[in-house]
Amino acid sequence: MPKIDLDAVPQLNTTGYPAPFHEQMAGRWVRRLGTHAGLTVLGASHVVLKPGGWSSQRHWHEGEDEFLVMLAGEAVLIEDEGETILHPGDCVAWAMGVRNGHHLVNRSDADCTFLCFSAGERAAGGGYSDIDMIFTTQGYQHRDGTPYPPRES
Amino acid sequence: MPKIDLDAVPQLNTTGYPAPFHEQMAGRWVRRLGTHAGLTVLGASHVVLKPGGWSSQRHWHEGEDEFLVMLAGEAVLIEDEGETILHPGDCVAWAMGVRNGHHLVNRSDADCTFLCFSAGERAAGGGYSDIDMIFTTQGYQHRDGTPYPPRES
Repeated sequence: MPKIDLDAVPQLNTTGYPAPFHEQMAGRWVRRLGTHAGLTVLGASHVVLKPGGWSSQRHWHEGEDEFLVMLAGEAVLIEDEGETILHPGDCVAWAMGVRNGHHLVNRSDADCTFLCFSAGERAAGGGYSDIDMIFTTQGYQHRDGTPYPPRES
Repeated sequence: MPKIDLDAVPQLNTTGYPAPFHEQMAGRWVRRLGTHAGLTVLGASHVVLKPGGWSSQRHWHEGEDEFLVMLAGEAVLIEDEGETILHPGDCVAWAMGVRNGHHLVNRSDADCTFLCFSAGERAAGGGYSDIDMIFTTQGYQHRDGTPYPPRES
């Protein structure tokens, strides 16, 4: 049956970000629901942010649409225009190619939970609004194309 | 700001199904959030089923992944294996090409609400488990390929 047993899906706390940009990801716990369920073109993840956790560095995708729905708790959405507090049931969408970086930060004292979805061409890469980084098929690079060294783990 | 004002998105009660298969859709109210937000490859819809409402005829897609999350109320998921009651927070995924039709029916006495997502190639078509119908780039057809006549409205 395709109803997903969330408890059966591993909760991962990993990130591929180079140092020091991985540090803000310490409070992010991700279940890759789409992959778990055999989906191949629709990305679907269940994310818990601990207090202080970030969803990502503030970023955009050149070739992927994204959509997020809050399920529990409260998070602050940050974009070029400013901040918006998100509550359960709130929906947010980001169209591919719009170079307005976004991320969520949990400034509350409780966990928050959301689902996020994506579709498109990840290989088209994207950028980060607040740091000297882009992502390409070659991995994470400085904006001038210099690669970041792999992070020791 | 990309936070979606749900009240600003039209709620549509339309269906392209030929008669008599449109009749069960009378209790389905859809907001096309993805299109509203400028998404082009990630489908995202907010759906309210009135008591008695169906999400669709029981169907599958040959080329599209689908994902659904319940937001409020209760619905019955029906598939080849049987029935599963879905509650808020429950997540369900259907991988493209799995010929096990699915739909939700609201057998409760209150509205239920869910979000559904899709990505892939709609043009690959699909089938219906319980009725003599398929969908192709030519529209709705009998399983033998005979087209259904357009529905008078």
